[in-house]
Amino acid sequence: MADHPLPSWNDGAAREAILEFVARVTRLSGPDYVRPAERVAVFDNDGTLWCEQPMQAQVFFLIDRVKTLAAKDSGLKQRQPFKAFLEHDMKTLHGLGKRGLMELFAATHAGMSEEEFADIAQAWFASAKHPKLGRPFPKLAYQPQVELLDYLRANGFKTYIVTGGGVDLVRAFAEEAYGVPREQVIGSSVRLRFDAHDDEAVLMKTSELNSFDDREAKPQNIGLHIGRRPLLAFGNSDGDLAMLRYVKAGAEPRLALLLHHDDAAREFAYDRGFKLSPLADALDNAEAYGIQVVSMKIDWASVFVAEEPAPKRPPRVSAARAIIEDRRRGLH
Amino acid sequence: MADHPLPSWNDGAAREAILEFVARVTRLSGPDYVRPAERVAVFDNDGTLWCEQPMQAQVFFLIDRVKTLAAKDSGLKQRQPFKAFLEHDMKTLHGLGKRGLMELFAATHAGMSEEEFADIAQAWFASAKHPKLGRPFPKLAYQPQVELLDYLRANGFKTYIVTGGGVDLVRAFAEEAYGVPREQVIGSSVRLRFDAHDDEAVLMKTSELNSFDDREAKPQNIGLHIGRRPLLAFGNSDGDLAMLRYVKAGAEPRLALLLHHDDAAREFAYDRGFKLSPLADALDNAEAYGIQVVSMKIDWASVFVAEEPAPKRPPRVSAARAIIEDRRRGLH
Repeated sequence: MADHPLPSWNDGAAREAILEFVARVTRLSGPDYVRPAERVAVFDNDGTLWCEQPMQAQVFFLIDRVKTLAAKDSGLKQRQPFKAFLEHDMKTLHGLGKRGLMELFAATHAGMSEEEFADIAQAWFASAKHPKLGRPFPKLAYQPQVELLDYLRANGFKTYIVTGGGVDLVRAFAEEAYGVPREQVIGSSVRLRFDAHDDEAVLMKTSELNSFDDREAKPQNIGLHIGRRPLLAFGNSDGDLAMLRYVKAGAEPRLALLLHHDDAAREFAYDRGFKLSPLADALDNAEAYGIQVVSMKIDWASVFVAEEPAPKRPPRVSAARAIIEDRRRGLH
Repeated sequence: MADHPLPSWNDGAAREAILEFVARVTRLSGPDYVRPAERVAVFDNDGTLWCEQPMQAQVFFLIDRVKTLAAKDSGLKQRQPFKAFLEHDMKTLHGLGKRGLMELFAATHAGMSEEEFADIAQAWFASAKHPKLGRPFPKLAYQPQVELLDYLRANGFKTYIVTGGGVDLVRAFAEEAYGVPREQVIGSSVRLRFDAHDDEAVLMKTSELNSFDDREAKPQNIGLHIGRRPLLAFGNSDGDLAMLRYVKAGAEPRLALLLHHDDAAREFAYDRGFKLSPLADALDNAEAYGIQVVSMKIDWASVFVAEEPAPKRPPRVSAARAIIEDRRRGLH
């Protein structure tokens, strides 16, 4: 990879923009050198790092959660919005909008601890499969993006996910799928309640929305969580435009990238018509804002990661090696 | 330091507890081994990492900010609470409580961008001195704690600050003073507003409180920002008790430490009488909760960091070296 970075990216404007940008900020003697501590890259998740069609994994997870709850409470399946979920009633689901879905999500996930939720989410990721593509959800990750994340980390960047998805759900697989540790995932969240008695102390997920991490909330949450203006941002929808503009408005050099899903043969072709997360404004104004559009069809040599699990790593030989290994993977 | 870690810690129960704990979680073949990605340590700031007497630096900064504003608006100095600030009227200030102070802080800092505030804060840290100790504020850092942070990072820990102080103020000096990067500072915060037009895009600090990061809010914000239960927590007041209990309630091994300011000769001796941030409940129940009390007088061989600036580092020779160097300092 050192000889030919980003092998799943075709030669072209997008790949060139990335390589040139990274070279500029890492060239120690150059005028645009940025010290490693300042090298932050932020990525949207749904539709940017993995497939979001026909609905975000978040929604599939929600449906499965409702099914599980309905199995315990038979009245549930007759009540809206649960009915629509269970019947895969897309029209009703779309009508709720992303924010409505998030609020429903909160309502169906209240009353358990952070750790209980993490267990449920991990079990789901280990068993559930995408209904159309037949892959486990973590295998919906895009190979070119996994390479880009690795490449950025190898060049001293700290990589973050800034997602409209529920932060706890994305944290449950981001490390395995992308090498992004839990603490570098920023997402939509519910308020947590601290419950302590005697030796017990847990954080309970309440049904109250804390942050819907979309549009303006993305740069706002970057300010809150990271406190640095990132050098690079990658998105794919109008929900990412504020984040892309925030990054591009920083002192040069900055790189803002926008993935355009124009590849019906290998994935899906969609933009302004996707109600759950349209791409219109960002695409129409990309040039004016200096945003580099990435065409899935033209710029990517492959789309999805290999479906078979990666070969097991050799056993670790020392604690120092374990730290180095985690650092290499960006987990430390 | 490898031969004798924590040189500014005296031999005794506290130092032993730290060394034994770190050995347990890093011993690869041991039953308590924790992989590096899970090694998170959280530290309160005021009174834990640096001096908070007679008031937190936050308050001194606020006074100087009000002075600056009063110089531009002569009516200000006759109005409360500005009057009390300018006259160092401790009784009135204490009467406001920490939360009142934070809200006032928010009110006096609205209407500027994150980056403008960072410049103001950095300029203040470069010039202001503690009125009693005569040191620049970053030199109020405790030497044993700087060593502990370094020691934890050398053992694969990611070190975080979880402070009741304003997150932007602490971010302005945490890297220099403690080697803790901006994104690993969690603190009290105001809501940010995203303002964008044409090529400009900034995060503006509003006067609306987002989070007062004290008591239960500390573990709640750890859940939001980090998403892992830390292995180690260090605090010094009742405001840290929820965080200490949260950490100790995790599966063993965990370490919770509580600094007791009992050293009038070298620093200050105080606990339950300090109205801005009392220590009573946590001290009275430390044993019951399994919290290790650290006596400044007994456990620390020295208190403050050296006042003269550290010797300049040699010029960096390569970008790779720069990354390694930043990693060593925990900034990456």
